[in-house]
Amino acid sequence: MPYILSGSCNKLAVRLFDSYELAPQVYGDPVSPLNKEQFALVHSLVSAGAKGLSPQRLAEQYDAKMKHYEPGDQPTQDFKNVFDELSEVPHWRGVLIRPGQDPDSPLDRSEHYRIRSVRMNIADAIFESQSGFSTTGATVIADLEDPISLPHCVLFWRSSTHFLGGLGIIVLFVVILGQGSAGKALMRNEIPGPSKEGSHSRMQHTAWMFAGLYCGLNVILTALLWVLGMNFFDAICHAFGTLATGGFSTYNASLGHFYQVDHTSGAWIEYVVIVFMVLAGSNFTLLYFLMIGQAYRLIGDIEWRYYMGIIVGVTICVVCFGMVYDDFIIDPNTSFFTEAQLALRNGLFQVVSIITTTGYGTHDFDKWNSFGRGVLFLLMFVGGCAGSTGGGLKVIRHILFHKILFLQLEKSYHPSVVRPLRLGGKPVDDPDLQTNILIYFSLILVLFVFGWLSIVTLEPDATWGTTDEHIEHKLIDSATAVAATLNNVGPGLGIIGATQNYANFSWWTKLLFTALMMIGRLEIFAVLVLLMPRFWRSR
Amino acid sequence: MPYILSGSCNKLAVRLFDSYELAPQVYGDPVSPLNKEQFALVHSLVSAGAKGLSPQRLAEQYDAKMKHYEPGDQPTQDFKNVFDELSEVPHWRGVLIRPGQDPDSPLDRSEHYRIRSVRMNIADAIFESQSGFSTTGATVIADLEDPISLPHCVLFWRSSTHFLGGLGIIVLFVVILGQGSAGKALMRNEIPGPSKEGSHSRMQHTAWMFAGLYCGLNVILTALLWVLGMNFFDAICHAFGTLATGGFSTYNASLGHFYQVDHTSGAWIEYVVIVFMVLAGSNFTLLYFLMIGQAYRLIGDIEWRYYMGIIVGVTICVVCFGMVYDDFIIDPNTSFFTEAQLALRNGLFQVVSIITTTGYGTHDFDKWNSFGRGVLFLLMFVGGCAGSTGGGLKVIRHILFHKILFLQLEKSYHPSVVRPLRLGGKPVDDPDLQTNILIYFSLILVLFVFGWLSIVTLEPDATWGTTDEHIEHKLIDSATAVAATLNNVGPGLGIIGATQNYANFSWWTKLLFTALMMIGRLEIFAVLVLLMPRFWRSR
Repeated sequence: MPYILSGSCNKLAVRLFDSYELAPQVYGDPVSPLNKEQFALVHSLVSAGAKGLSPQRLAEQYDAKMKHYEPGDQPTQDFKNVFDELSEVPHWRGVLIRPGQDPDSPLDRSEHYRIRSVRMNIADAIFESQSGFSTTGATVIADLEDPISLPHCVLFWRSSTHFLGGLGIIVLFVVILGQGSAGKALMRNEIPGPSKEGSHSRMQHTAWMFAGLYCGLNVILTALLWVLGMNFFDAICHAFGTLATGGFSTYNASLGHFYQVDHTSGAWIEYVVIVFMVLAGSNFTLLYFLMIGQAYRLIGDIEWRYYMGIIVGVTICVVCFGMVYDDFIIDPNTSFFTEAQLALRNGLFQVVSIITTTGYGTHDFDKWNSFGRGVLFLLMFVGGCAGSTGGGLKVIRHILFHKILFLQLEKSYHPSVVRPLRLGGKPVDDPDLQTNILIYFSLILVLFVFGWLSIVTLEPDATWGTTDEHIEHKLIDSATAVAATLNNVGPGLGIIGATQNYANFSWWTKLLFTALMMIGRLEIFAVLVLLMPRFWRSR
Repeated sequence: MPYILSGSCNKLAVRLFDSYELAPQVYGDPVSPLNKEQFALVHSLVSAGAKGLSPQRLAEQYDAKMKHYEPGDQPTQDFKNVFDELSEVPHWRGVLIRPGQDPDSPLDRSEHYRIRSVRMNIADAIFESQSGFSTTGATVIADLEDPISLPHCVLFWRSSTHFLGGLGIIVLFVVILGQGSAGKALMRNEIPGPSKEGSHSRMQHTAWMFAGLYCGLNVILTALLWVLGMNFFDAICHAFGTLATGGFSTYNASLGHFYQVDHTSGAWIEYVVIVFMVLAGSNFTLLYFLMIGQAYRLIGDIEWRYYMGIIVGVTICVVCFGMVYDDFIIDPNTSFFTEAQLALRNGLFQVVSIITTTGYGTHDFDKWNSFGRGVLFLLMFVGGCAGSTGGGLKVIRHILFHKILFLQLEKSYHPSVVRPLRLGGKPVDDPDLQTNILIYFSLILVLFVFGWLSIVTLEPDATWGTTDEHIEHKLIDSATAVAATLNNVGPGLGIIGATQNYANFSWWTKLLFTALMMIGRLEIFAVLVLLMPRFWRSR
């Protein structure tokens, strides 16, 4: 994860040096040196990070710093005067933010003194890298559209991590699939389901084919998006984010930005991205068959049929409930047809975006009714098909899970009936499969519960702001945050909802999320086993 | 479930007859007939149920009724005047409640016109019965302390259902345990764990012993509570609720009522109830050993040790976090010692009350910090020991579940190592046990998720009131409501929190909760299998 550590993302809005006598830099330009009071103020704010400081805390830190520089003396000036004075200076004007200046900021940030675009610390950098490579798409960067603190090259690298992550998953899938007995131990953990049909003898050839397919889809989507009015840079970044089911965008409003700019082309962009998200969430073996003209294999695949069934079914429910509750429109005079169109596009987009664990947003689904939000939360645990770039539990596991439950229920009353587990008509003969699927679900459950309890315990209430109303949401927000990282989705509900990001969490929570993203991507077994003492002992 | 249907609980505060010319009854006494306007008003309120009607809705219904009686005419009086007029009449004064009169009412009920103690409908009656017999202790009766609408005989019957339910569980446990091969099919479903140690050959004798032990504990607790200052009626009702791990009280403030009345005796009552809740959540086989002087068997039992360990560990965490967040005190000047005492008593009481699935309350734990509330929510799924009257998943299942996960993780990297599942040093040799435990957890998970989604979908937002703030809680409140009924606990968080009840839900949701309580009590398999078409077909 070298990219942020290499410093390109460390480009600060404000860079201070150790002593107040050295000239600081604002957006890379050296500016005139600060006096002691100003330095103490700016230094406090820079250390505080993205959340800034409440007036009381800032006053304390400012006083402490001034005492440090001039022991014994009382500070000559109140920090508010220093702040006002410094805000008059041209270079500093756009950088210092006073309480109430940004009323749209999430929660208590609007009540704080802050500095714009503060440095990402190590935890932020690790989080953002892991989020990229694991194709999660959760971000800690509050403002993506500031070209000085976040140049295009960094944004491009950020999206590239998605591309690389997705490519790695696809190639790994093929390699493990073909390694036979040697890779069996890993394969059992890595391949979510018993579909070995695509296994060619010409392994390397297949790997190249899949990688080519993946790259080709990227190229096609880039071209399409370019034609539809994006500039080339945006087109390629969003293509990377879509095909890897990642979700990093280059705009704060995610993919919804293009609709805000131009309603017609924006809507088309969304439809195109929907199609490609669905493809990215499908098994690449099947896409390969589709490419060589055997479309019936795609249509006939049991997992893909369930996958499409879930998307269609859930979308219908979400759209119907959303229209009953008027979730999609602001103006109550909107005609029924317009509303239906809006609801269908946004509902379908969000359902596909969440089930494929992409995490792009076109609409603030946190404002939806409880049914919609609840269903999206559950969809996070569904995920794409096995052998796709999507995260989550994978559709095939859910199918098997429900078949196993059904079989066992039957067995408990007819112990003599021996009915094999069937998948698409064919019996599945692996005797360990049942236990493995059940264990997998159990592990996810245990991880989810422990992750949730850890976040609830470790993360201070202050992250949710100071009002009672927001603290009440801690339980549900934490649950969605854990689900969103464990399943490599990205956005959750509430404080990390569609229009928010993970910047407000404390660094230890970010590291915990990083671990969850890794576990989610590597399919648990491989990671958890490393933590077991017996594994090390008996080597 | 005959008791409420028999009519004793149907005793209305207000009984109306079909025509306004017949005299209505208020608390059973006939009062002078109403005029048309008054009848229309009272009829609207009675039909509306416990939640009452907002001023707008009441006006609509009142107008509609008046139009029905005198077609073509405009109502001569505004409903507010009629309400004021009727409130002056002695009989009606205590019965009609205007907005703002009861500011403590949950959510939007305080904004509504209401009538006190409206009739329980069939769904309410079924809910209350199931809640009693399944020893859940969730209630739909908003006001328990109204002796006219809810006479003592009904309250006593209500608590007796707990006693009967608990007795049934204990006797069933013994009977199934001893039936050998004949009852094996059922036993597998009903007994949560492989502890067959207590199985005597003299079956009937054991059943009687257990029933006697259960009744004896009830008698002892009743005597103790009586001595500690309760009247005999309260003592016996609360003993029933404690030993059956039910949780029906005879006061609106549950067991906290006695502390409000008298701090000293109230605190002692709480400590005594804590001890008996812990006993009720223990395996009755072990209590039997304790009674015949073999206390070492109780101390040595692996499940009981885990059970006590969880109680002590969680209580320490809850008390520490609660004190940091000042959850237990209102006055910030309370001394540390007083606060610690208060925190310890209330924290321990709530932890024991939830883990044993009793559900008594002495403190509004919904005002605790997120950690405390989150942990209580998880404790609901733990439950008591196998062979106790407690609900939930049972401690032994959790022990086995974690052992199985650990074994399987190890197996995934050392496939050649065959390590048997051990419980308290002895290997557990049942090959089906692993699958059964996993399936059991999976079924609970599936039931929980589907229950939760159903509540979120079916229950209208209006139950949570009209403000955005409350609707936001729908997701988490529904989750706790499902957990509280499925595990036979009783209270949950938010709208069904410690100081609230289930009265606000709509009748279909109440029936769903009833089903969940039944499934939770009968340990799932037996109930779910009835719903499977194949089960019926192949008989």
